[in-house]
Amino acid sequence: MIHFSRSLNRLVGELKKLPGVGEKTALRLAFHLLKAPENSRALAESLTDVLSGVRFCSVCHGITEDDPCCICSGDRDNSSICVVEEPQDMLAMERCGAFRGRYHVLHGALSPLSGIMPSNLKIDELLGRLQEGAIREVLIATNFTVEGEATALYLTKVIKPLGVKVTRLAYGIPLGSDLEYVDAATVQKAVEGRNEL
Amino acid sequence: MIHFSRSLNRLVGELKKLPGVGEKTALRLAFHLLKAPENSRALAESLTDVLSGVRFCSVCHGITEDDPCCICSGDRDNSSICVVEEPQDMLAMERCGAFRGRYHVLHGALSPLSGIMPSNLKIDELLGRLQEGAIREVLIATNFTVEGEATALYLTKVIKPLGVKVTRLAYGIPLGSDLEYVDAATVQKAVEGRNEL
Repeated sequence: MIHFSRSLNRLVGELKKLPGVGEKTALRLAFHLLKAPENSRALAESLTDVLSGVRFCSVCHGITEDDPCCICSGDRDNSSICVVEEPQDMLAMERCGAFRGRYHVLHGALSPLSGIMPSNLKIDELLGRLQEGAIREVLIATNFTVEGEATALYLTKVIKPLGVKVTRLAYGIPLGSDLEYVDAATVQKAVEGRNEL
Repeated sequence: MIHFSRSLNRLVGELKKLPGVGEKTALRLAFHLLKAPENSRALAESLTDVLSGVRFCSVCHGITEDDPCCICSGDRDNSSICVVEEPQDMLAMERCGAFRGRYHVLHGALSPLSGIMPSNLKIDELLGRLQEGAIREVLIATNFTVEGEATALYLTKVIKPLGVKVTRLAYGIPLGSDLEYVDAATVQKAVEGRNEL
């Protein structure tokens, strides 16, 4: 391969580390950035800003610039808390607009095979918040994967003894689905959870 | 939408300006960069390095850090020059390994509708290099698009009077193609350009 410049090769190498970016995409992005120096400058600046400005909220462990974050310090329902795996899952919950309580970010899900045990997650911090006594319901919104389900089961086991109600997002058929193409396990869960009209 | 932090939103905004990156991908990249601060730092640094270190070669107008670039100053065939639209096209030519001459980057292709006229391209610079007299053949490797073909025609018209041979990359069927799926115009060009075995 022709070596245009060491710094360009390094930029391509760094871009290749991004998820979903291979050699060709990295080259295309690098040449685009080279042709738009003001965009490159702004991108470099905003990366530096994010590194210096963004941290984790000391209450919910979500992403924030001010501690506590806008949700923890905002006017929300203090009696319920939604547990999610990652900060971006808070976005998905907020987008739906159906939950008005607080949040708690675990920063992962239980996965003994990958060495992720309860002590690696923010579970002790969650139990600490529950022991303060204001919270009546914990809505578990971990992912619907093997790890997410295992985490939900574990949390149920440790939270129930505290006398707090534990709920889970409903299983079922996604809106707009063609029943014919929905997998059997999902249809089974939808039958089990059927509602009276 | 929940506002985690101004700097994170700005980073998402900057990432969205990249080609092929929409809202969802930008969010995914931003959260990835947030979780890998050493990658973000290296990316920001390499962006700054590229902006300060990379410039255009004064001879071929390709991308380089040292002027003239490694191809212009290297041990190559001085009698032929390959004309390409963009610096990255030099990469494609070098990858094939079939060309050992010099290069000239036009920085675009003729497109009267978008206001790109001969004076907006590095055509005068190319003619200047041809007038030095060492070059016997110009291989035109502009893209096989309407704009690239128009540029090839224009270049042929202005270069031929200088007594320099003008050639064009061959049209034809790409290697590994199933003839059934090749478009009719390409098959027509392949018939016209058929070779005796």
